[in-house]
Amino acid sequence: MKIITLGGLDGIGKNMAVFEYDNAMIVVDAGLMFPDDDHPGVDLILPDYTYLLEHAQQLRGIVISHGHEDHTGALPYLLKDLDLPELPIYGSKLTLGLIEGKLAEHHIKNPPFVEVVAGQSIGIGDFELEFFNVNHSIPAALGVFIQTPAGNVLHTGDFKLDQTPIDGVTTDFAAITRFADEGVDLLLSDSTNAINKQFTASEAEVGKVLYSIIKNAPKRVIVAAFSSHIHRIQQVCDAAIAAGRKIAVTGRSMLTNTEIAQKLGYLDIAPGSLIDAYDAKDIPAADIVILCTGSQGEPLSALARMAAGEHRTVPIEDGDTVIISASPVPGNEKAVTRVVNALSKIGAEVYDKERALVHVSGHAGPEELKLMMVLAKPKGFMPIHGETRHLRAHAKLAEDVGIPRSQIYVLENGDCLNLAQGKLSRGEPVDSGIVYVDGLSVGDISQVVLKDRQTLASDGIVTIVCQIRSRDGRPVGKPEIIMRGVSGNDDNELLEDLINIVEKTATSLAKEQRLNSSQLKRALRERVSSVLWERSRRRPMVIPLILEV
Amino acid sequence: MKIITLGGLDGIGKNMAVFEYDNAMIVVDAGLMFPDDDHPGVDLILPDYTYLLEHAQQLRGIVISHGHEDHTGALPYLLKDLDLPELPIYGSKLTLGLIEGKLAEHHIKNPPFVEVVAGQSIGIGDFELEFFNVNHSIPAALGVFIQTPAGNVLHTGDFKLDQTPIDGVTTDFAAITRFADEGVDLLLSDSTNAINKQFTASEAEVGKVLYSIIKNAPKRVIVAAFSSHIHRIQQVCDAAIAAGRKIAVTGRSMLTNTEIAQKLGYLDIAPGSLIDAYDAKDIPAADIVILCTGSQGEPLSALARMAAGEHRTVPIEDGDTVIISASPVPGNEKAVTRVVNALSKIGAEVYDKERALVHVSGHAGPEELKLMMVLAKPKGFMPIHGETRHLRAHAKLAEDVGIPRSQIYVLENGDCLNLAQGKLSRGEPVDSGIVYVDGLSVGDISQVVLKDRQTLASDGIVTIVCQIRSRDGRPVGKPEIIMRGVSGNDDNELLEDLINIVEKTATSLAKEQRLNSSQLKRALRERVSSVLWERSRRRPMVIPLILEV
Repeated sequence: MKIITLGGLDGIGKNMAVFEYDNAMIVVDAGLMFPDDDHPGVDLILPDYTYLLEHAQQLRGIVISHGHEDHTGALPYLLKDLDLPELPIYGSKLTLGLIEGKLAEHHIKNPPFVEVVAGQSIGIGDFELEFFNVNHSIPAALGVFIQTPAGNVLHTGDFKLDQTPIDGVTTDFAAITRFADEGVDLLLSDSTNAINKQFTASEAEVGKVLYSIIKNAPKRVIVAAFSSHIHRIQQVCDAAIAAGRKIAVTGRSMLTNTEIAQKLGYLDIAPGSLIDAYDAKDIPAADIVILCTGSQGEPLSALARMAAGEHRTVPIEDGDTVIISASPVPGNEKAVTRVVNALSKIGAEVYDKERALVHVSGHAGPEELKLMMVLAKPKGFMPIHGETRHLRAHAKLAEDVGIPRSQIYVLENGDCLNLAQGKLSRGEPVDSGIVYVDGLSVGDISQVVLKDRQTLASDGIVTIVCQIRSRDGRPVGKPEIIMRGVSGNDDNELLEDLINIVEKTATSLAKEQRLNSSQLKRALRERVSSVLWERSRRRPMVIPLILEV
Repeated sequence: MKIITLGGLDGIGKNMAVFEYDNAMIVVDAGLMFPDDDHPGVDLILPDYTYLLEHAQQLRGIVISHGHEDHTGALPYLLKDLDLPELPIYGSKLTLGLIEGKLAEHHIKNPPFVEVVAGQSIGIGDFELEFFNVNHSIPAALGVFIQTPAGNVLHTGDFKLDQTPIDGVTTDFAAITRFADEGVDLLLSDSTNAINKQFTASEAEVGKVLYSIIKNAPKRVIVAAFSSHIHRIQQVCDAAIAAGRKIAVTGRSMLTNTEIAQKLGYLDIAPGSLIDAYDAKDIPAADIVILCTGSQGEPLSALARMAAGEHRTVPIEDGDTVIISASPVPGNEKAVTRVVNALSKIGAEVYDKERALVHVSGHAGPEELKLMMVLAKPKGFMPIHGETRHLRAHAKLAEDVGIPRSQIYVLENGDCLNLAQGKLSRGEPVDSGIVYVDGLSVGDISQVVLKDRQTLASDGIVTIVCQIRSRDGRPVGKPEIIMRGVSGNDDNELLEDLINIVEKTATSLAKEQRLNSSQLKRALRERVSSVLWERSRRRPMVIPLILEV
């Protein structure tokens, strides 16, 4: 069996692992990643799944461990590119429900969905898959035990070991023990929190804190959370109802997901407690909890619009209480801070996870990770789902519990492991990487475009248009110079100087010798760049354009 | 007396407060702020001190509370702009030493420096200033008690209440008690940590952890810290020496500041323990500690270069230990993470403040802040040094200790307080704001330029050059189109289409009626923008340029 990771080893996102045996292939997860400031203007990042497209005929199915976008978000793109309408997608009821919503947004017809439940075994060719419950920050998350004649792999998916989960579903120790008995040749396990606190607190702890804040709040309470965090949403609703308040939901994804979760039976709200956000204004402030999107400070989200006083139905006033029941994803800290400051200015009391336990992680801490290894008794180990530092730290934990260093594989995306007769070895890496989605375009954004954008962002752009007479190469009329984003943009003196320099450079080059236009371009670029550097210590992008007349 | 804040009320940075009495004016602090991603290409942010320039003749002196750049960094720019070579600068020996170094970098002649010590009183016209020790993350930090016939103001500067400080200098409770007896009409106090943990741990705690990590490290130890954090540097050196290691210093500001601090007697390293970084490679890895810059992940810093394998004298190898003995300033989290991942990839063991107590804050937590208020017994209170959420939280603490709400002033930069016969009231606000420093240019970066840069960064730019015949307005030759940072940059089909659209638009407009060039420009911009939006859901900046021939 070949195990190839196409994503998830360079950050918390775009998870994708491929399992190959005897010319058949299954994929576990197809996630996306949200870009950071290094990728200006990029909307989404996908794993480069060229390898799958090249081997599409071998593909037998896609397994999705749970409904988070870093595990499902690449699916619409992958399915479009594969164009295999009969390829089955395996997942739990909620996972498939959330995927169905996403595919509809992309106008993609539903592929054959195969709903699986924990404890169920399915055969896909020579692959025998058994699903088991794991506890995570979304209900109905599954791990998968993959058996082939070449050996057995245990893939945890994302998990934590919450002993008091909201829906009563704990990570299934008994199943893992059983897999250990059958023999786990390789464990793939979630590294997200490998360098965090020893144990991750139970989701139930958050419920107590939410109740106490809501109960004591003098006026309106607004709670921002991840719209896929159904347990958290359940707890907010439970706390609101216990405190005698109604609940109104706002924000597109929050509305969609609460609807799906209710329909599929994952969210239980007493009838009459949920009211329309339009009616919220008719209810006394002390009798309502608003559940909304915007926990990441997204500028167009419900919470950001409330903070800016621009939300259609929910005003925020002095004395209101806002709970940000989430952790900022790395890179979003500043955006969240901006919203918190805007809320503070209005006079709202803001609770975030620094101030009170209004959020816990959905990933296992170091002690839990070690427990998983001790339960699964794997011969080989490969940390997945994390940045390099997380993978290394997780590898260290594996050493601590006695897995031999030689059997621990800290890989990079595209790397390949071979498993034959229960023995692991490195295989040939495959092409991998990342693909940018920008607006409607997938993969059209190259590193060149991003590099350009970074230069444009930090130093701006200067376009020079110079008309020259084709007869003798002498400039005709005044050159035109357009500057955007350049320090000293409105400096007419600088502009005049640059125009003169361009004119002089072009004239003197024409005198000296007949230069072709690319030589003139280079000369103008160098001359103008060096003047701008002297004057401003900046290197804007300089684009000369020569028009022969 | 008028109290006017020109900076420091919209974030941790660019602190500047003005005190006016009877036509005389003193300034406390002149700091800068480092920009975040909202300010692409901006190097520094200064407070807008136009008000000081307009009233330069009334200015009697500038007091600097301590040597951090958010309190000193605007000084070179302010002094240049004021051009008052006789204006005295008041500060402690170390503060003035660090300022001297900064002014030299800017080629500014030293102004009259007046060195002050805690306990000293100086009169500046009707202002009577008494300085007192505060404990902070830099030695020789001072608070100041300002007495005028109109009333008394206590300005804490930045402080914490460390009872086991490295240099034995605690915040001077006795002095503050004495000021309370004389009557504090207004307290200005540091809000940085108003929403943090109740007490800030002692700097001494960090020393123990540093020693234990260094002592147990198998190979080279690299410690990155703030170069102005002399106490931290002292502790790193003490730990290194106690563990039997030599110390090498690298990174420009680290070299400068350790030199200044040693010269002025603030840093005490046994002779022979400090070696040149060039000689570090001749010493066994287990016998050396490298002290360096780069704790913020700055791409050109010593640590970032080591992580990239590009440092001239210090290699980092598998098994080395790296301690990041600092907290990432908000906005730098990603940059630090990038460096940590690069170090992890090499195989270095990385300790940051999440993993061990290798850093503590220099600012007082809520309990300390309340203690300060109870000691100073102020009639009025104004939180300074923080974002809105910190100032609001600090104001809340003031209410908790019994300061009447009506006497608590949460202000914004440019706001003015009047103090007359011990009574506070709101005054007329003055012009204020922020000034960007970009390369060599100060204040030339307008909001327009920044807005342009953001558009350029996210969507790119399209320049259209269209030659038209002045006789009849018909296009001559093919229009030229240059795209940079645009999704689909290399898409020749898109380019062809756009060229055709420009040509067609220009031709049809010429047919219909004689349009002037600004009308043609508008038409081209609208047409091209709408095509790009349809194709890519992006709105690059579109700049049409019409050349009449």
